[in-house]
Amino acid sequence: MSRPRPLSGFPEYTPEQRIIEQYVLDRLRETFELHGFASIETRAVEPLDRLAKQGEIDKEVYVVQRLHAAEDAKAELGLHFDLTVPFARYVLENAHQLQFPFRRYQIQKVWRGERPQEGRFREFTQADIDIVDNTTLAAHHDVELPLVTLQALERLHTDLGLPPVLMRVNNRRLAQGFYAGLGITDTAAVLRQVDKLDKIGPDKVIELLIEQGLSDAQAQACVGLADISTADASFVDQVRALGVTDPELDEGLALLAAVVETAHRHVPGRLVADLKIARGLDYYTGTVYETELVGFEKWGSVSSGGRYDSLASDGKTTYPGVGLSIGVTRLLAPLFSRGLLTASRPVPTVVLIAVDNEESRDDAIAVAERLRSRGIATEVAPKADKYGKQIRYADRRRIPYVWFGVPPHSEVKDIRTGEQLPVDPGRWEPEGVDLKPTVRGPA
Amino acid sequence: MSRPRPLSGFPEYTPEQRIIEQYVLDRLRETFELHGFASIETRAVEPLDRLAKQGEIDKEVYVVQRLHAAEDAKAELGLHFDLTVPFARYVLENAHQLQFPFRRYQIQKVWRGERPQEGRFREFTQADIDIVDNTTLAAHHDVELPLVTLQALERLHTDLGLPPVLMRVNNRRLAQGFYAGLGITDTAAVLRQVDKLDKIGPDKVIELLIEQGLSDAQAQACVGLADISTADASFVDQVRALGVTDPELDEGLALLAAVVETAHRHVPGRLVADLKIARGLDYYTGTVYETELVGFEKWGSVSSGGRYDSLASDGKTTYPGVGLSIGVTRLLAPLFSRGLLTASRPVPTVVLIAVDNEESRDDAIAVAERLRSRGIATEVAPKADKYGKQIRYADRRRIPYVWFGVPPHSEVKDIRTGEQLPVDPGRWEPEGVDLKPTVRGPA
Repeated sequence: MSRPRPLSGFPEYTPEQRIIEQYVLDRLRETFELHGFASIETRAVEPLDRLAKQGEIDKEVYVVQRLHAAEDAKAELGLHFDLTVPFARYVLENAHQLQFPFRRYQIQKVWRGERPQEGRFREFTQADIDIVDNTTLAAHHDVELPLVTLQALERLHTDLGLPPVLMRVNNRRLAQGFYAGLGITDTAAVLRQVDKLDKIGPDKVIELLIEQGLSDAQAQACVGLADISTADASFVDQVRALGVTDPELDEGLALLAAVVETAHRHVPGRLVADLKIARGLDYYTGTVYETELVGFEKWGSVSSGGRYDSLASDGKTTYPGVGLSIGVTRLLAPLFSRGLLTASRPVPTVVLIAVDNEESRDDAIAVAERLRSRGIATEVAPKADKYGKQIRYADRRRIPYVWFGVPPHSEVKDIRTGEQLPVDPGRWEPEGVDLKPTVRGPA
Repeated sequence: MSRPRPLSGFPEYTPEQRIIEQYVLDRLRETFELHGFASIETRAVEPLDRLAKQGEIDKEVYVVQRLHAAEDAKAELGLHFDLTVPFARYVLENAHQLQFPFRRYQIQKVWRGERPQEGRFREFTQADIDIVDNTTLAAHHDVELPLVTLQALERLHTDLGLPPVLMRVNNRRLAQGFYAGLGITDTAAVLRQVDKLDKIGPDKVIELLIEQGLSDAQAQACVGLADISTADASFVDQVRALGVTDPELDEGLALLAAVVETAHRHVPGRLVADLKIARGLDYYTGTVYETELVGFEKWGSVSSGGRYDSLASDGKTTYPGVGLSIGVTRLLAPLFSRGLLTASRPVPTVVLIAVDNEESRDDAIAVAERLRSRGIATEVAPKADKYGKQIRYADRRRIPYVWFGVPPHSEVKDIRTGEQLPVDPGRWEPEGVDLKPTVRGPA
């Protein structure tokens, strides 16, 4: 058996990196719960026909089948590629026992059979929040979700030193209404071209739109709309100046203005209206969100989502929803690969209990138990080596303290300073900052 | 689209059940970290040839393949069926950057294509601890692991009211040495029959052993050994009384006696030596553990494991390990299905901020933000309904408090008692017991 090699696209972390990931996940969970989101988890698999409904993405699904399934058995299950489709199914399945509007967060792995490359993974962790209601969902939730997400990301910026973010928001109804006002019917076809704006530039997009049958004026107006981006509600006047009128356009403008204005009051500088944002997934019907790390825009969106008015429907009742997803792996993996995030130590242990000889191991265990009962993470040395070797065991793991002897003759050494003092296992406390591993980011 | 139905063997929880599961997982994590175990996660998939090595289980593996893989593409990946095999692979892959002995915990889902039935799932959560070392692993870790596991399970007993547990421990070297002393060479064949003792009784097992070529005396001795179970080290004398001698038997007896004696001092009454315990998986080579819930023995083992001396080897170096796994789903699902575990509420929210009218929603958000900044989970009411309706919104979710008005004219009502008092958003605190959802078990 030779040394196994990593599987491309399936990132795995060192214990130190995992401490950082847990730090991030704990803070996301705390922020979500402070906003009243309840946790759920869904199974890893969904029926293939439910996954395949999301047209664009079916080619990237992983099929799951028993190794010894009958030769002619048809594959029926696939690994979920996001948390929105499983959540919509969960809502339908459990509607009778949920209270609406239902607010949930969900932190799980998802899988996509994509070609792996930097920022693209085959297995990755997402942290989603969604609110769904029965029949209709109030517009203010489209405002609420980016506030929660931005607060979560802001905390990673201030506490961990991750780069600040900028969320770009648009509304599909705004674009749809605008296009309708221009006399364009195939909204999706236009959006597909406009989505290429950043890659190929406005002239090329106009060319493509004209090829598609738009007049020069229509194509110019579409690109003009996509070009608008403001940090306040002034985008409304800029759109009006393009001279298009339509009732759906009015609704879209009002909805987007409410998002931008509220965000401007509560999280200034972190959210802009950007009328070229489209989002790929078919199920979005209104507000759409994308978020980039400032200074690392080329890594792509680290938090995306939108409103989906008809994803969850059982034929009788529809459950409209709005959701935002934080790409935890996408956020962390590039920072890990550049060594920009570090933890103070790769283990939870604060103190190592030295062992004098194997006969007294039980006394060392008893000391350890007393410390653990007061919340101090403690290991007993694995071998009754010379003290110097036991200290090196701690040092290699960056465990800050080593404990010698049994009460009433116990002493603790801070192996960073060399200071050693007599202590009592019922009372000794490490420095507060040493109690848990701390993490540090690039800032 | 009709209402979707659950997939048999893939349990999903309600938000209230998920709160209970998170409570359990948080406490397991805390106990593991207090003992110096570092967290890792491994990817969900392993190469099929690595999974298939564990003879018995390969028929239950789920294969994973891209939906649009080439027709003749050979499946190469499968979902992991436990956390030990992936961990052994992780150790080999990362040995150059790990410190040995390496202590890790791992809480993840695993998948098995088994026929679903009560207590058997196709997707379930395990919480594992393992210690591996380079070349040799000290015997005291076989003693340490059950102490940590029993402490974790004891905490669920005292804090949550789960039933107490009894861990049964054996050592394969003890049985091997005993059989060798009897002149039996095919240990595995004997173990397979002895494993049926509880199901078919001693007479039938003796019959099967004789059919396999053992003498009547040999068969009697094997069943005699399997019949021994003691809560202290007295099993050693009982084995000696069977009159078999062998150096490996001596080693096995000493190792098992050390486990039982130390457990007897630190967690009295929770661990016994039971010489019929075999464990199915081929990779165990020494101590083996099984754990049942007292009074619910028929649910099977909720925590199992053992020592594996040669699972992780790259041809040059071997990394022996010892591990124990807690079956979190197996522990919780039967209690959920009987309604024996409840949470005080199905949401994290402590207080609902009532909204007077949509124009003042922003003031309500500002109050909520002040409370959240002090760690109080707060929701803003989704609709500016009459107060009675907003109180019903809270009541249906068992949210204990509703907040009315904006400072300086704020009041909080405890909707359980009806008591309503003027409060300040910078200072109000809920009752301590209300801050987080609490959980309650059957006891």
